[in-house]
Amino acid sequence: MEKNEYYMKRALELAAGGWGRTNPNPLVGALIVKNGEIIAEGCHEKLGGAHAEVAALKNARQDVKGGTLYVNLEPCSHYGRTPPCAEAVIKAGISKVVIAMEDPNPKVCGKGVEMLKNAGIETVTGVLEGEARRLNEIFIKYVTRKQPFVILKAAMTLDGKIATAGGDSKWISGEGSRQQVHLLRDRVSAIMVGVDTVLADDPALTARPGGETGNDPVRIIVDSKGKIPIDSRVINNEAAAGTILATTSAIEAGKEKLLLEKGVRLLKLDGPDGHVDLEGLLEQLYGLELDSVLLEGGGGLNAAALAAGIVDKAMIFIAPKIIGGRDAKTPVEGDGIGLMRDALRLGELSIVRFEEDILIEGYIRYK
Amino acid sequence: MEKNEYYMKRALELAAGGWGRTNPNPLVGALIVKNGEIIAEGCHEKLGGAHAEVAALKNARQDVKGGTLYVNLEPCSHYGRTPPCAEAVIKAGISKVVIAMEDPNPKVCGKGVEMLKNAGIETVTGVLEGEARRLNEIFIKYVTRKQPFVILKAAMTLDGKIATAGGDSKWISGEGSRQQVHLLRDRVSAIMVGVDTVLADDPALTARPGGETGNDPVRIIVDSKGKIPIDSRVINNEAAAGTILATTSAIEAGKEKLLLEKGVRLLKLDGPDGHVDLEGLLEQLYGLELDSVLLEGGGGLNAAALAAGIVDKAMIFIAPKIIGGRDAKTPVEGDGIGLMRDALRLGELSIVRFEEDILIEGYIRYK
Repeated sequence: MEKNEYYMKRALELAAGGWGRTNPNPLVGALIVKNGEIIAEGCHEKLGGAHAEVAALKNARQDVKGGTLYVNLEPCSHYGRTPPCAEAVIKAGISKVVIAMEDPNPKVCGKGVEMLKNAGIETVTGVLEGEARRLNEIFIKYVTRKQPFVILKAAMTLDGKIATAGGDSKWISGEGSRQQVHLLRDRVSAIMVGVDTVLADDPALTARPGGETGNDPVRIIVDSKGKIPIDSRVINNEAAAGTILATTSAIEAGKEKLLLEKGVRLLKLDGPDGHVDLEGLLEQLYGLELDSVLLEGGGGLNAAALAAGIVDKAMIFIAPKIIGGRDAKTPVEGDGIGLMRDALRLGELSIVRFEEDILIEGYIRYK
Repeated sequence: MEKNEYYMKRALELAAGGWGRTNPNPLVGALIVKNGEIIAEGCHEKLGGAHAEVAALKNARQDVKGGTLYVNLEPCSHYGRTPPCAEAVIKAGISKVVIAMEDPNPKVCGKGVEMLKNAGIETVTGVLEGEARRLNEIFIKYVTRKQPFVILKAAMTLDGKIATAGGDSKWISGEGSRQQVHLLRDRVSAIMVGVDTVLADDPALTARPGGETGNDPVRIIVDSKGKIPIDSRVINNEAAAGTILATTSAIEAGKEKLLLEKGVRLLKLDGPDGHVDLEGLLEQLYGLELDSVLLEGGGGLNAAALAAGIVDKAMIFIAPKIIGGRDAKTPVEGDGIGLMRDALRLGELSIVRFEEDILIEGYIRYK
């Protein structure tokens, strides 16, 4: 591996240290190399905390003057929650900066690099850019499209079912897959289900990575008519993040009042045919600085989300089990597409094993 | 790799040369090594043709006396379609025989090895036995259980559908997967579908590996009431192998006569609830020397076959497409299993890519 790629791989590893704690900021890692030795490492640990470059400068075990900084995202050039990193890098006397990807925000893209160049610092960009873009896919969509990144997650049997004909879904997938889902919940800022899932399973929708208390995502329940039972766990259980009910003007005033008393935030978004306007919902979520949504179905909401074009990525866990059942639920329902040639296609597939289960993930390619 | 394994790997490759031409005989390859050099190779090319050991002896480029024979299956000790191979090996002066697996037929297992040992030939067994058993899984079930080996094959979307809600299934899977299915059809002795598949798609069910004419499997249509249209392609098209209608006494006499006139073989097997007795069907197929059945559904027949416990292996091709549809067909239907803990499980999973598609295959573990 080339030297730049070797160190950038380490920067990406450091960046991942902020997993689920920096949203809606990006994941950023930085390290400083001098005379062939790593003399400092840092990462953006949490929202409002030091940026990775500043953390690395602070952690340096020797004078960084003349060193090379590796960082997976272009250093910022503007005053946001913290002062601009490019300025700190210049002041510290760094002589070269290697960057994986430029800032995706078109308004600031390249300005950090320009500031460094103007100060006489050599800059290299595009090292492991593909990996860097994948790591920050949430941030990239959030700043460029002004919508959260949406991941559709489902667990199904090898014959395509998410529950038996009798409605039993505990458990489709194995322990390894379920732990992976808790890591995902820990990563994203919100989790979204339809009210039918609440009625069927009464889930808590909290993050319990490794069985520990995690970084609970905001729970979003799509419930056009306000059918949610007032004693549901998503409304009553203790979770660090709150609950949003995405509904329409069809909700009864009495129910609305009860929900507000429980601390539920209501978003009324009238869409076509009495449904919730899902694209409008995404815009509202952007306004709440929620950069990512894990969509955990069921089949009706998944179909509506795909039809609305709001899903970016699908993660389908497949368990090597067969349950059959012409009436068993499947991961995407609704009316469905009429002809195979109009099927939604996925690209950039990857396949990962979690014990016996197989995770297939890919990105939706809308036409 | 150890020397024995190296040569046995080659014997397995040679064995595969008989793919689809030796049924219901096994796939066997043999080679002779002398002074560190392969001096002969052979395979059992087709049913009734020379056995692999004899073919290798005949192909030898120099005197085989004192050579070592590698063969993936124990040489036979009995007069069947050809004289016993063990005898030929002894006569030729081979001094050592390395075998992957013993004959699976409990009545003859070990007798070939015994014959060789009695003649003073050193024998080694169990080299790459796992691979050898996998290669001849069809033969092993056929001779030990006296039933054909049944492979359930389905092609579904990533959301678990085998057709759109409107019934369109052309095509779920890509060209690469479909070619693989033609190779499978070329390999097995029979292919089985339900009459609903004939009514919906009117398929030819022939083998066209690489677009060429292949070794057509016998077509078996499961049709308890004799609903099959008399102008169906499976009855009328030209195929090297014939068509069997597995039906019950519910078939009308007039329809039966028409089908017999078309050369269709009728098997009447009354099972419970007016369905075809699938286990009885397998026994009949064994009697016809059909060693393997590729079960290509639909969901109703697949569910019945799994419930009857006749399926050995499942091969599910998954296309990275989403079509949705609460009424779209899935690969296994029927009433289905009530509780997840009673799900049928698959073991020894393997995952193979065919262009964009993903093939998951595994063996059904009945309780």
